[in-house]
Amino acid sequence: MHRTRVRVVRDALDANDTIAAANRQDFDRAGVTVVNLMSSPGAGKTTLLERCLEGLDGVRAGVLEGDVRGSLDAERIAALHVPVAQIETGAGFGGECHLDANMVRSALPSLPLHELDLLVIENVGNLVCPAEFRVGEDFRAMVVSVTEGEDKPLKYPLMFRACDLVIVNKVDLLPHLDFDLDKLLSHVEAVHPGVERMLVSARTGEGVDEVRDWLVQAATRERVPA
Amino acid sequence: MHRTRVRVVRDALDANDTIAAANRQDFDRAGVTVVNLMSSPGAGKTTLLERCLEGLDGVRAGVLEGDVRGSLDAERIAALHVPVAQIETGAGFGGECHLDANMVRSALPSLPLHELDLLVIENVGNLVCPAEFRVGEDFRAMVVSVTEGEDKPLKYPLMFRACDLVIVNKVDLLPHLDFDLDKLLSHVEAVHPGVERMLVSARTGEGVDEVRDWLVQAATRERVPA
Repeated sequence: MHRTRVRVVRDALDANDTIAAANRQDFDRAGVTVVNLMSSPGAGKTTLLERCLEGLDGVRAGVLEGDVRGSLDAERIAALHVPVAQIETGAGFGGECHLDANMVRSALPSLPLHELDLLVIENVGNLVCPAEFRVGEDFRAMVVSVTEGEDKPLKYPLMFRACDLVIVNKVDLLPHLDFDLDKLLSHVEAVHPGVERMLVSARTGEGVDEVRDWLVQAATRERVPA
Repeated sequence: MHRTRVRVVRDALDANDTIAAANRQDFDRAGVTVVNLMSSPGAGKTTLLERCLEGLDGVRAGVLEGDVRGSLDAERIAALHVPVAQIETGAGFGGECHLDANMVRSALPSLPLHELDLLVIENVGNLVCPAEFRVGEDFRAMVVSVTEGEDKPLKYPLMFRACDLVIVNKVDLLPHLDFDLDKLLSHVEAVHPGVERMLVSARTGEGVDEVRDWLVQAATRERVPA
């Protein structure tokens, strides 16, 4: 019984990887760099994205929003006149807690891929499951906010290990918190040595330039097809 | 293929409910009230629990900690000389993102159930999946922090609907945020009309008495076996 269940799960993961590879081929063909952006609920992904999208001179960006329910974030992005599509996972199994490659694939026809240089996929707010599912992205970035406590890298190591960039958000709140930033950064380093980190406040704009530059660099790099 | 997968999922949910009912029988037999405490990562469940446990005069409390990795929270609770057990979900499928009834059942022998009036199960930090799995609890409470934004009830309605109590934490930070508390509360009301709400700051202690009273009342109520 138990062995059967494990086998089913493995099949499902293989199917995800197969579809992720197909997505990646489509992204490469269109010449679009794809960033999978992940975090806890409320860490500030959308606000950060709004800030970054406003100054992406010359880089044609699009966004794919993943949420359990609703299209609030997609509406915020659309207000910036950026092409955006929404995946609502709530129609699935009690509300899927992550995006998988097939969900992303189903949304691709809604986006003008060939007119984009950069596609940011804003994943469902969740520090566990999204890290387990590749969707065909080139890069993975995560946002962790300083209000979440210093212990998150130790408690959710897979997410921190899976990412190419760790963005520490809400640093404007540091004076009002009992929060040890050095401790957080040492925990990040412990679970993912050498990973790139940026300190930002999406609210005040502090550090946002650095994230925007990272996105521009990702979108304009020389492409090596997967 | 799709129909087969749905059937497997349904079986798994049924098995969970069966085991949850067995847990509930054990809890009833031991005369212990069980509260399933849920939230996003870093919303402040453990700090709130520490605060509440310090003044639970006459109520004998125990805690079951669920985390993907580590035993940091269990160590914090143990420091208060409260019986505590840790479930680490990381050994499972890439790190299970919730507690299910079977995980809870496996941990029960580690707790002196018959010497407790109250068992708080601190679930894995996640606003989606924990709401889908009953573990045999009498009550479900959730913590949402004001740093997470007003939109969370709309984006994660199942969690807000599943709970008997919604605790709004970190209200001490309100002066430093662009956060509309009335908007959050109206969203809570929209997805779960009439649900009990409490405004607290686990950090300053504001409002914690009310949560503690709620726990005491839950633990000392007349028991109606399920």
